[in-house]
Amino acid sequence: MLSTMQDGRLSIAQILRQGTGPHGRSAEVVTWTDERPRRRDYATVGHRAAQLAHALRDLGITGDQRVGTFMWNNAEHLEAYFAVPAMGAVLHTLNIRLFPEQITYIANHAEDRVVLVDATLLPLFRKLLPQLRTVRHVVVAGGDGAVLDAPAGVEVHDYEELIAGRPTEFDWPDVDERSAAAMCYTSGTTGNPKGVAYSHRSIWLHSMQVCMSDGMALSQADRALSVVPMFHAMSWGLPYAAFMVGASLLMPDRFLQPDPLTRLIAAERPTMAAAVPTIWQGVLQHLEAEPRDVSSLREVVIGGAACPPSLMRTFEESYGIPVLHAWGMTETSPLGSVARPPAGTTGDRLWEYRASQGRLPAGVEARLVGDDGSVLPRDGSSVGELEVRGPWIAAAYYGDDDPEKFDDGWLRTGDVGYLTPDGFLHLTDRAKDVIKSGGEWISSVELENHVLGHPAVAEAVVIGVPDEKWTERPLVAVVLRDGQRVDAEELRTYLAERVARWQLPEYWAFVPEAPKTSVGKYDKKRLRQQHAEGALDVTRLS
Amino acid sequence: MLSTMQDGRLSIAQILRQGTGPHGRSAEVVTWTDERPRRRDYATVGHRAAQLAHALRDLGITGDQRVGTFMWNNAEHLEAYFAVPAMGAVLHTLNIRLFPEQITYIANHAEDRVVLVDATLLPLFRKLLPQLRTVRHVVVAGGDGAVLDAPAGVEVHDYEELIAGRPTEFDWPDVDERSAAAMCYTSGTTGNPKGVAYSHRSIWLHSMQVCMSDGMALSQADRALSVVPMFHAMSWGLPYAAFMVGASLLMPDRFLQPDPLTRLIAAERPTMAAAVPTIWQGVLQHLEAEPRDVSSLREVVIGGAACPPSLMRTFEESYGIPVLHAWGMTETSPLGSVARPPAGTTGDRLWEYRASQGRLPAGVEARLVGDDGSVLPRDGSSVGELEVRGPWIAAAYYGDDDPEKFDDGWLRTGDVGYLTPDGFLHLTDRAKDVIKSGGEWISSVELENHVLGHPAVAEAVVIGVPDEKWTERPLVAVVLRDGQRVDAEELRTYLAERVARWQLPEYWAFVPEAPKTSVGKYDKKRLRQQHAEGALDVTRLS
Repeated sequence: MLSTMQDGRLSIAQILRQGTGPHGRSAEVVTWTDERPRRRDYATVGHRAAQLAHALRDLGITGDQRVGTFMWNNAEHLEAYFAVPAMGAVLHTLNIRLFPEQITYIANHAEDRVVLVDATLLPLFRKLLPQLRTVRHVVVAGGDGAVLDAPAGVEVHDYEELIAGRPTEFDWPDVDERSAAAMCYTSGTTGNPKGVAYSHRSIWLHSMQVCMSDGMALSQADRALSVVPMFHAMSWGLPYAAFMVGASLLMPDRFLQPDPLTRLIAAERPTMAAAVPTIWQGVLQHLEAEPRDVSSLREVVIGGAACPPSLMRTFEESYGIPVLHAWGMTETSPLGSVARPPAGTTGDRLWEYRASQGRLPAGVEARLVGDDGSVLPRDGSSVGELEVRGPWIAAAYYGDDDPEKFDDGWLRTGDVGYLTPDGFLHLTDRAKDVIKSGGEWISSVELENHVLGHPAVAEAVVIGVPDEKWTERPLVAVVLRDGQRVDAEELRTYLAERVARWQLPEYWAFVPEAPKTSVGKYDKKRLRQQHAEGALDVTRLS
Repeated sequence: MLSTMQDGRLSIAQILRQGTGPHGRSAEVVTWTDERPRRRDYATVGHRAAQLAHALRDLGITGDQRVGTFMWNNAEHLEAYFAVPAMGAVLHTLNIRLFPEQITYIANHAEDRVVLVDATLLPLFRKLLPQLRTVRHVVVAGGDGAVLDAPAGVEVHDYEELIAGRPTEFDWPDVDERSAAAMCYTSGTTGNPKGVAYSHRSIWLHSMQVCMSDGMALSQADRALSVVPMFHAMSWGLPYAAFMVGASLLMPDRFLQPDPLTRLIAAERPTMAAAVPTIWQGVLQHLEAEPRDVSSLREVVIGGAACPPSLMRTFEESYGIPVLHAWGMTETSPLGSVARPPAGTTGDRLWEYRASQGRLPAGVEARLVGDDGSVLPRDGSSVGELEVRGPWIAAAYYGDDDPEKFDDGWLRTGDVGYLTPDGFLHLTDRAKDVIKSGGEWISSVELENHVLGHPAVAEAVVIGVPDEKWTERPLVAVVLRDGQRVDAEELRTYLAERVARWQLPEYWAFVPEAPKTSVGKYDKKRLRQQHAEGALDVTRLS
C-alpha cells in the first residue's frame, strides 16, 4: 500500500529558497579580507546565484555538466554552491592543496567544463590550466583586472562582469532527488583519487542532521565560522545547513593563520566554529601569546583527525568552550558522528565520551569487522574495521571501481576501533597506520596522544617501521615547542608510565616540523618515506 | 548523472534499531498509573515489539494489512507503533474520542484486520465491535482477565499471553520507503472522515524535523511528556523522534486531568511536554490552587489550536517556562511550524513572534491564496488561505477523493492568515470560522483572545451568526470563571477598547461550558447548531 504523502523531492533549490526567503535579510555571509570584511545577506547571495546560473547557461552549461571551483571559503564560492546544483548541473569543488598532477587528473576525470577560480589562486591555477582537457571557460572571482593567459579554446571571464546585469531570479528546474548535486574527490585505497557524487537527497538529509540537537545543533541563532575549506568534504555541510535554517556564515577566505582567525573571531563573534585539530592547536597557541575575545563561541567542532584530549581540555578549562569531537569522511557527506556525552555524565566519564568519535546517528548504521571478515560485538573492547551504511553514505566512486572500499553494501571506512554498547565510536587508528607488532596491534594515535601530553612537545607523529623480530615497531617523530628541550630517553620514561611495556617505542626522531597532508592531517606516508630514505635522524633506545 | 550515494531507504525499523540499540538501556517509556508508574527501557520495548510482530504474523497479518489501535498513550501502544510498521504492515490509530459511527466507519474503511484495545476502553469498544466488518482478532492490553464477548468470526486475545514466550528478535523486512507505515483519519472538508497514510520516508523526515534545533529541538537529553494522544496525528511525532535520538517518553495513559498530570510532572521531571491549549489551561489553573514542582520543563509545546497569549505569558512569567507555539494538522504529519523568535528579539516583538504560528521549515513550502485564487504577497498584511507542500505533507486521502482539499499539488489547509517577509505564519482564523461581515472578514479567534483577556472570563467561543444586513455578525459564548460575575454590556465595553468598532459583537451568550471536539478544540459547528436550534440564551446589544 502506497502512502498518501507527497513526492516532495528534496532539492538544493528548496534549501536556497529557504535561505534567501525567510532568512534573506537576517542571515549574512561575511568574507574576511585583509581590510574590513565583506558582508552579503542571503537574499543578495540568492540574487547573485541566479545571475551566476544565467551566466553559466550562456556559457553552455546544460544538463548535468560539471562546474569546478578552485576557491577559498568566500561569498562567491557560496554562490557557486547554490547556483550550480540548483540549475541542475554538478558542482565540483577542486582541492587546491592536492599535488598539481592530482588536481588535473581530477578535473579531467570529472570533465569539468567551467572552472571558477579565485584571483588569489591564479599563480597556482595558471600552471594547471594547460593540462585541463575539458575546460572551456575560466571565471576569475575577485580579479580586479587580473590577467590569465588561456590556451586556445578556453575563454577567460571576470566573475563580476559575467554576472552583471543578468536577471536576479532563476526558474530553478525540478530535479530527481537522487541525481548528483556536488562532487568531491578523495584518496581511495589505491591508485588515483576517487570521486564522490552527493545527491540532492543526501545533502538535504545530511543538512538536517547537522541541524539536529544531537548533531551540530546548528540553528537560526548561529553564526558559523567555517574554517574547514569548502573544497574539503563540502565544508562539513555547513553552507547548505546554514541556508536550511538561516544561520549566518563567517568565511575566512585565505586567512587561515592563527592571527587573522583570532581577529575574525573577536570581531565577528561566531557562535560555533569548525576546523581540524592542527588549526585549533595554532589558534590556542596564538591566544596564549595574544589574548583575544573568543567568548562568543558556544561550541567548537573538531574533526578530520582525532582530537588530542589536551586540546579539548584547554578549550574547556581556559576558555569555557566545549569541544564537539566529530568523525566523518568525504564518503560520509561527511558527518558520521559527534561526541555529545549522554545527559548527566560528569567527571572522567565526560572526558572519555568527549574524546570518543561520538555516537552514530540513526542515518549512519555501523558494524565492526574483524580480520577474518566476521562482525564483532559492540562490547566496548572488540577492535575491528568500521563499516557504515545509510542515506548519506557513498555506495561507489564516480566512474572508478574500488571494490576494496565497499563490502556488501557497506562502506569500509579504513578506520579501526571499537563501539560501546551505548553506541559510541572509539577509533584507535587508521587501518593502514596501526602498528602490527608480534601479532598485536599498537595504536599509533594513542602513542601520539600520550607523547603530546608532555609539556615540551608541540607535535608528535608515530609510524610503524620494519623490524625483523616483531614485523613492525613504533617510531615517534617529535616537534618540540619553541625554546623547549627534552631528549628521547626522557620522553620514553614519561611514556613508560602511560602505556604497556611492549608498546614502548624504541625509535625516536626530533624534526623541525611534522609532515602534513593537503587537509592538515599528519602525513604518515611521507614520514615513512623520509624514514625509508634515511632522511630522519633516528635515536634507537633499547 | 546519478549520484554515487547509497539508496539508504528510510524505515521505521531503523528508527527502532537506533532506539533499542545505542539508547536501549538509557532511555525509557514511563506509563502513568493510579499507583506507581510502569517503567520499561527501550531495549525491552524493542524485544516486546518483536514479540508482538511474531504474534501478529501468527494471527495472519501479512503484507500491508492494517492493524488498528484503540489505546491511550502507554508502553503497549508504543510497542504497536514500532512492531506494526517495522514488520511491513500499517498501523492505524483509531481516535477513541470520535462518535461511534465515525470510528466504525474509519475501521471499516481502512479494513483493519486486528485491533489492539486497552482494557480500560473496553466499555467503549464493546459497543463498536459488532459493526467492525473486517476485524478478525482483538488483542486486549492491560486486561487482567477482562472479558469481551466477541461476535462470530472474531477471536479475542490477551496482549501479554499472546506475546509471551515468543522470540525477542524479528528480522524486520526491507520496505519501500514510500510505502505506508501508519494511518490517521481526520475530518475532510465534506462527508466522511478522511485517511492520511504516512510513509516510512515522511515519518523519518518529520522525526528529523522534530529533533532540529529550530524544530522541537528534541534530543537524547530530553524526557518528553506526550499529553497529545497517540491517536491524534501520531502524538505530534514524538514517539518516533524519541526513538531516533534516545529521548525518554512519559505517557499519561488515561490520566489526562490536571491533578494527575501535575503529579506526573513533579514526579517524573519531563524536560518538554506537548498538549493542546485547553489541557494547559487546566494545568495552570490547577497549579494555582495546588502548587507543584514543574521546574524540570525547559519548554512547553502548545499546538492543535491557537494558543491564547495570556496562557503563554503565565507559563513564562509565573513558572519561567517558555512556550513553543506550534502549528500543524493531521495532513502535515503534523509538524508544520514552530514559533521560535529570531535570535536577539526582545520585548513586545518577542511576544508577537511567540504568538504567531511560527516559521515554516525548509520542508514545508507555503503560499497564501486569495478569494480569487491568486497567490498573495508575504507582506505581513495580505490575508489568504494557507496552502503547503513538501515531503511530509499529504497529497491525497486514502481511498477517498476530496479534490477541494488539494490545489495543483498543494494542500489547502483551511487556515486563513498572513505571512511575514521573514517567514512567520500568523493565522487569524479557520476559513470556515471567519465571520464575513459586510464584505470584510472578522477573525473569530482574535475576538476570542481579547475576551479571554478579561479577568472574569474562563473561556470564550466566537461564531458568525446570520444577519440580514451584514450577512454575518459575531456571537460570543462566554464561560465565566468560578465565582465571577460580569454582564455582556461590561464585556462589550472592555472589548471596545481593543478592536475596531465595526467588529464589536452584538450577540452574547453565557454558557456553563464550551462545546469541544474530540481533540479538545472548541466545537464551533456544535455551537452554531445550538444557536440555530435556539438552545442558547442570547443577549443582543446594539
